[in-house]
Parts: sequence; structure tokens; C-alpha cells
Amino acid sequence: MSVLVVGSIALDNVKTPIEEHSDLLGGSTSYASVAASFFAPVNLVGIVGDDFPQAHIDFFKKHNIDLAGLQIVPGKTFRWSGEYMWDLNTRETRSIALNVFESFEPKLPAGYESTPYVLLGNIHPSLQHHVLDQVKNPRFVIADTMDLWINNTPEELKRLLTRIDMLILNDSEARMLTKQTSLIKAAAQIRNAGPAYLCIKKGEHGALLFGPEGQFFSCGAYPLEDIHDPTGAGDTFAGGLAGHLASLNHEKISFDSLRKAVVLGSVLASYNVEAFSLERLRTLTKADIDGRYQTFKRMSQFEVIG
Amino acid sequence: MSVLVVGSIALDNVKTPIEEHSDLLGGSTSYASVAASFFAPVNLVGIVGDDFPQAHIDFFKKHNIDLAGLQIVPGKTFRWSGEYMWDLNTRETRSIALNVFESFEPKLPAGYESTPYVLLGNIHPSLQHHVLDQVKNPRFVIADTMDLWINNTPEELKRLLTRIDMLILNDSEARMLTKQTSLIKAAAQIRNAGPAYLCIKKGEHGALLFGPEGQFFSCGAYPLEDIHDPTGAGDTFAGGLAGHLASLNHEKISFDSLRKAVVLGSVLASYNVEAFSLERLRTLTKADIDGRYQTFKRMSQFEVIG
Repeated sequence: MSVLVVGSIALDNVKTPIEEHSDLLGGSTSYASVAASFFAPVNLVGIVGDDFPQAHIDFFKKHNIDLAGLQIVPGKTFRWSGEYMWDLNTRETRSIALNVFESFEPKLPAGYESTPYVLLGNIHPSLQHHVLDQVKNPRFVIADTMDLWINNTPEELKRLLTRIDMLILNDSEARMLTKQTSLIKAAAQIRNAGPAYLCIKKGEHGALLFGPEGQFFSCGAYPLEDIHDPTGAGDTFAGGLAGHLASLNHEKISFDSLRKAVVLGSVLASYNVEAFSLERLRTLTKADIDGRYQTFKRMSQFEVIG
Repeated sequence: MSVLVVGSIALDNVKTPIEEHSDLLGGSTSYASVAASFFAPVNLVGIVGDDFPQAHIDFFKKHNIDLAGLQIVPGKTFRWSGEYMWDLNTRETRSIALNVFESFEPKLPAGYESTPYVLLGNIHPSLQHHVLDQVKNPRFVIADTMDLWINNTPEELKRLLTRIDMLILNDSEARMLTKQTSLIKAAAQIRNAGPAYLCIKKGEHGALLFGPEGQFFSCGAYPLEDIHDPTGAGDTFAGGLAGHLASLNHEKISFDSLRKAVVLGSVLASYNVEAFSLERLRTLTKADIDGRYQTFKRMSQFEVIG
């Protein structure tokens, strides 16, 4: 089964204490679509300018990503520039130029509206609503969000929560959204506001998954010796998670399926941060993913039998 | 088999944003001994003044903690006073009065020197050395330490690393000790300096366990809705861990035993922070520990069979 991925497509400039690279492929849709494509067919919805390199389009195509929903319009592609501090955990945005993204209206091409799995990447909640207005009976809808929308568009975000099956956000955002310091209390409050499932990302410390009837999964982070560029880790996580769910094609999503989806999302993200932009995903294989999944599982087991 | 626990015994004043309590039982030996006592007999080594309440001594006795190594001397018991910030993660020491602890010389009473498991609680490395000079062929020696000794007594700490089987410290201390930001690199460096095993505590984010030949275990933290007092969490963790190892009475400690020991240490610590001082440990039962261990195991499983 396919997964519909909507979000931003950008050309990034990224600076870390070690390296600086410009004109990199970036944006939530780029990361999430390519990550999801390792597991399931992807219907991409996004917008780029006529300066967008053909090589990136070819890269998406090589990953069997359907580009009927990619709008290529006159003007410049969305540009983001950011810098990471020495610990690679703190990031400062140096500049944003929305360019053609400013007039983005996500319009689903024929056939997309019946995609069963929907991943609403981290964009303005009104755009996320606009996509939901077009899809028909989706089986599972996941939305990503960020501090910007929590602060600037709280009402639209609140209404979004009632229309989705799962919200993904990071720990500081969960606290910001609920004004609770305890993540357990924050999770209960968010789930009461709508989504049956909630995933709280804790960066290098892993992720927490919450479901109905007190269902809970605590996933550690895959330990990495060398992180080169954390950009897109969250989007890659969400894409891998959604892609795995779509690949299962279950009538009803179970908590145990989501458990594995969170781990696979973490595995994809752990690979992605090993290089700038989507470079590591270019060479990644299904065997790499399976291998790291098994290693990760072994190193997280409380008891090893045999 | 028994475990020898050495460290500080204190009377604490603790302030959180919610409550303040004074004259509480505290100190690394108190927490670690009582935690270990749920699993194995404990030989305690410590010092208190003649103002130390008999009720605390009775509490230790009730937990079958051997007190032949408890020195009760004229003067005042070690006093510590601290305050936690709003998130309960940041702590400020308001005052320390070493009192009788200043002249503490840990002298092992007859019989203690052959205790097979040794937990060197967080005290001056020279005192930890002094204990090791007295024990005979211990099976497994664990040492806890802190930023104070990393900064003030680096040479004594360095030499201690060559005499122990396992070091326990927290993530910021591992980075401080090695000047590495990557915990994976820090762990390799510490293990190269001596201990075969290393446990890095990450507070609310769990713990990492490192062993020979790349053996690695990532343990999440047990999620808590209400934390009342984090004091002694690390000591309780170390005590539970050491107690479980002693209870197994294995000739050689395996990585899988240590894996379970880390989880049980986490379970004990998760209970301890639910109340001030050692209050929660007073009412804790073996059934409580087993119950939370099973819950914790379930919520950390990558795949649930059946």
C-alpha cells in the first residue's frame, strides 16, 4: 500500500563545527519520502521552483517516488540555512527564504486522494488541513509538527489533533504544547485532545510511543559514534515509520506494529545523520536496514535467551 | 553471597519546588545498602556521629544489613543540604558539613575482607583505594564516582580505574573525564583505562552498559509521572545493581547478568524517587520490584510475540 507524503522541499545550506555545505537537497518531504520509499510506494506532494536541479528529481524517481504531486513553478525553490553548535544538538536558523513555497497549495492529483496512509510533514497546519480535506477515508493519518506552529497557530493545530491518528513531535514541543514538565502527563493530555497514538522524539535519547489503554513503548536511540549532520533526522524517522506501516497493509494498525515502526524509523534516522543532506540514504540498502534493526534489537533486550 | 558497601552516611536537608524536608536519612551508603539488601546480604562500612538517630540504625537492621563496619564516633554526622530547580534535573548544593566524615578511615571488621562483591560508593578515591587494600580476591568490584573527584583527584581516580571491574558515572561526567562529546568514544576511552565494564547513567533517559568485545546494552528509563525527590537515585541504582549480581553468585559475571542488573538498578531507582529520602524503600516489597521489572521489560520490547 502507498503512503502520501506532504511537506516542504528545500535547498539547504548547513554548517556544523566541522564542515559547511551549500545547495543541499532538504525539506521535510524529501527526507520523509525517500525514507518511506525503502518500505512502500510513495505519493509525493510538494512544490519547487524552476531552479530545482533535475538530479534531485531523478533521485526521487530512482526511489520509485510518484511525482504527479510535485508542482514545478516559475521562481526559486524554498531555501533554508542553519548552523549547528559544537554538540550538534543545538541549531540556529541563519536564514529562510520561502520563495515559491509561500504560495504552496497542496493539490492532490487524480488517484492520490485514496492513498490509505498519509504523512503530513512538518508544515503550516492549514496546509495539513487542506490535504486532509482532499483525502478519502484514509486508514492512518500521521502528522508531524514543531514549536513554530504550537506558538503561532495553536487553534489550527488543536483542530488538526482531532483529525489525525498519530502525532509526532519532540519532547520540548510536547512540554510546550501542554505546559506539563512530565512527558507522561503531557502525553495523556495530547492524546485526550485527539490522536489515539502519540510519538515523542527525544533526539539522541530515543523515542516514546503512547497508545490507547495505557499502551506504552520506550525506544532507546541507536548509539552513534560520529554524527555529521542531524538535519532531517525527525523527517526521516517519520518517513520510515509511515513507510513500514504502509508495507504491512493491515486493516487495523496494532500497537505492536507501531512499536516496530518506531524502531525502523529510528534506524533510518540513525543512518541519515551519518552524512550531510540525504547522502547516506542514497547508498543505503534494505540489508543495511535489516542488519541495524537486528543489532539495535539485541542491544535493547533486557534478557537474552540462549 | 554478600556485597560490601562503602560510602557516606548523611543527614540531609532537601528542598524541591514543592516541598522541603530536613534531617532526612541520606548518603551514598544508606541508599546503596538498603537497595542491595532486597537481593543479597549487605556488609556496610561507614561512619556517623553520636547524634545519628537510633531509628535509622534500626531501619538498617530490619533490612538485615550487617553493621559491624559502622563506626559511631563522638561528634556530628555528615550533613548535606541541597535544592532542586523546577525541572528536578538541576541541583544546587546549599551547604556541606563533613563533621565526623572528615576523619573517616574505612576499616573493615573481621570477616568483611573476604566479601566477594564490593561496591565503592561515591566518596574520595583515596578512601576507595583504602578499602581495596583490605579486601582479598574480590570477585567483582564496582566503583561510583562524580565530577568532584574527576576534577580534584584525577591521578587517584586514574589509578582506581585499573583496580576495578566496573565504573558507574553519569553522562556529563563521562564527557568530563574523557573530553569526548560522543559517549561511545568516551566509553571506549574509559574502558581502555581499566574497567572491563562501564555503566553511563543518563538520568531520566536511562543508562548505557559497555563491556568487552563491543558488548553494549541500552536501557531506557522507567517513565515516571511524579518525581518527588531525585536524591540518591544514582546510589540506589548502584546498590540494586550490585545486590542482584551478588544474589546470582556466578563464578564469572556475564554481560547478560549485568544487563538484568542494570534494569533492576533502574527499577529500584524509579521507586526511590517517588518519595523523599529512603521513604519509598521502607514499604517496597520484592513483589513490587518483580512487577515493575516485568512492566518495564514489556514496554521496552521491540517485538512482542504472542
